[in-house]
Amino acid sequence: MLGNFEYVNPTKLYFGNKSLDYLQKELLKYGKNIVLIYGGGSIKKNGIYDQVLEILKACDKNVVEDAGVMPNPTSDKLIEGAKIAKAHKADLLLAVGGGSVCDYAKAVSVSAYCDDDPWEKYFIRMENIDNPVIPVGCVLTMVGTGSEMNGGSVITNRRVNRKIGRVFKEDVFPKFSILNPEYTLTLPKYQMVAGFFDIMSHILEQYFSGEDDNTSDYVMEGLLRSLIHSARIAVKKPQDYEARSNIMWIATWALNTFVAKGKKTDWMVHMLGQSIGAYTDATHGMTLSAVSLPYYYHILAAGLPKFKRYAVNVWNVDPNGRTDEETAKEGLERMRAYMEEIGVVMHARELGLTEDMIEGVADGTFILKGGYKVLSRDEVVDILKASL
Amino acid sequence: MLGNFEYVNPTKLYFGNKSLDYLQKELLKYGKNIVLIYGGGSIKKNGIYDQVLEILKACDKNVVEDAGVMPNPTSDKLIEGAKIAKAHKADLLLAVGGGSVCDYAKAVSVSAYCDDDPWEKYFIRMENIDNPVIPVGCVLTMVGTGSEMNGGSVITNRRVNRKIGRVFKEDVFPKFSILNPEYTLTLPKYQMVAGFFDIMSHILEQYFSGEDDNTSDYVMEGLLRSLIHSARIAVKKPQDYEARSNIMWIATWALNTFVAKGKKTDWMVHMLGQSIGAYTDATHGMTLSAVSLPYYYHILAAGLPKFKRYAVNVWNVDPNGRTDEETAKEGLERMRAYMEEIGVVMHARELGLTEDMIEGVADGTFILKGGYKVLSRDEVVDILKASL
Repeated sequence: MLGNFEYVNPTKLYFGNKSLDYLQKELLKYGKNIVLIYGGGSIKKNGIYDQVLEILKACDKNVVEDAGVMPNPTSDKLIEGAKIAKAHKADLLLAVGGGSVCDYAKAVSVSAYCDDDPWEKYFIRMENIDNPVIPVGCVLTMVGTGSEMNGGSVITNRRVNRKIGRVFKEDVFPKFSILNPEYTLTLPKYQMVAGFFDIMSHILEQYFSGEDDNTSDYVMEGLLRSLIHSARIAVKKPQDYEARSNIMWIATWALNTFVAKGKKTDWMVHMLGQSIGAYTDATHGMTLSAVSLPYYYHILAAGLPKFKRYAVNVWNVDPNGRTDEETAKEGLERMRAYMEEIGVVMHARELGLTEDMIEGVADGTFILKGGYKVLSRDEVVDILKASL
Repeated sequence: MLGNFEYVNPTKLYFGNKSLDYLQKELLKYGKNIVLIYGGGSIKKNGIYDQVLEILKACDKNVVEDAGVMPNPTSDKLIEGAKIAKAHKADLLLAVGGGSVCDYAKAVSVSAYCDDDPWEKYFIRMENIDNPVIPVGCVLTMVGTGSEMNGGSVITNRRVNRKIGRVFKEDVFPKFSILNPEYTLTLPKYQMVAGFFDIMSHILEQYFSGEDDNTSDYVMEGLLRSLIHSARIAVKKPQDYEARSNIMWIATWALNTFVAKGKKTDWMVHMLGQSIGAYTDATHGMTLSAVSLPYYYHILAAGLPKFKRYAVNVWNVDPNGRTDEETAKEGLERMRAYMEEIGVVMHARELGLTEDMIEGVADGTFILKGGYKVLSRDEVVDILKASL
């Protein structure tokens, strides 16, 4: 049932292969001091860095750089970025990169004027933001996380091997995001398909929870069908602009809060995957692909009607002549074949997870209660073993 | 293909049976002077008027009323409302009602400080808004138009029998909308199902246009399936909160600009229906139901792949053993059966349309070019005759 909820999403999006043309218009809304945030420097190779810098210069901005944001941004890097932003009296944090860079920029935006340790205050104690927040704008170069249009931010503390996600309120959402599908065309295939599976997992985490009679479930079936269709094309033809642009759009809507409104959500696949990521530093989407089927088989009996619906409405399984369980399992087997087709990692050992890490990974796995079955720690261990 | 576009929707929604509790919080953001806008007074019968007035008093607001907004708000009424809003130095226009009341409030918001005739300037000449805009908030009591989360406004000029819709930019979108599904439970069945079909038509107008390979088409198939499912329940059990709340949510997302982004749209059913409405003052949704199948049969050959897809993905037509045309037509026949099941008007003569009006209605029908076939005036006449 649709409960009581608030919905607002103030992020302005510019979409398409001309979308960078609108950066100047947005920059003019902010003061002179900009922190340009990016990752490992791939934007220097593909020319995006130069284009953005040219626009910043044309707007006469006073730019400092905060580079080297890692795929799993760390709490140490966050402290460093917060200092840079504060020292620069930043009027805008301009994130140019994928979800990690956007996530990190949002974390910096709430941390720059935080007098406490922001990891402790905002990620461990999950306190409300009580200091000024610096506006964030994004130029997205990888799809997957939906970070370009939400308040999500995932930070990893390497000292305690903890990777924690937090969803901030709308004042931390990016003010604007520039989504140019062409920027995603140069991504190596491994990262590309990891992003595709991350999107799929975002939808499934919100789909496999709650009652069946919810508009969001119908919308998510549509998003899944579109994603499956376009990702198949993109894996064969990575330069297919149409497929890549649809995927970019799906990624945004999979996690900009819309489909979660008024329904329960699960997120246990992300809890398992993030804990593996904290130990192995593996690519996020691949940690999700490695644990998804072991987890879904584990909870299948508890959520049978939804798994059956998934099989029929998303994977076109004919339920006639099959028990509900057979239908549901056939759905998961078609999902497995699809995952193998697009080339995601099916076994966590390929990500560096070893048997002796499993107890530690289980310790680092938050157990959430929104799914069809609340796991015990023993069940977490079983699922992790099955994912190897 | 997803083209270049901007997307932003700043409207804040409060959804659920407790949503009116948030009105006070929103009212505190605005100055003292409020114009309370509503329709024929049904909100006085069902108690919503008293609840809203109590909250306005608790906030110590200085309220004037602009009542009597008709189902098809007129340009004369607009002039009157603009004078009231200006004279009251309104800080907020609070619309309490259905789509017509929200539409009208938005028209007043841009007209109060318009020195010219707002009908001529903003609906005939479609000029940009160059005067101050008064903020609008909505308490929605009927579903259908999506006006609670978009910039749309439809105004009728009775002197020239013209009904014209305009879509304003985001500064005219409601600042907030309160969506309480319980408010929709008391609506008479005729208005209820007219609203359901209006929603369906909004989705179809955006679906039956453009290429097939677009995420929005998948999302719209999900919205349609959810609507068909919930509307069936609501017609049998109008008090079913779950069905009515899903329908309210679908209505908002069908027309809050999301599904239209990056794709072509049609809107010829609305052009035909609105022209009938200008002559007959008939209920909007019923003008759409009367013309939809005649129009869709007329353009079926031009949009065959999409009509086939619609039949398969929305109406579960098995394409095996059928030609594409047979599949497509079977989809429209299932739609016809469904329309008869929920009880919408299938013939425009039941709305007061007569043979002798048809030339005039055709004259008043804007011919748009986004659909699968650009109609000639003769074709408009043929479709109108077929709709009788």
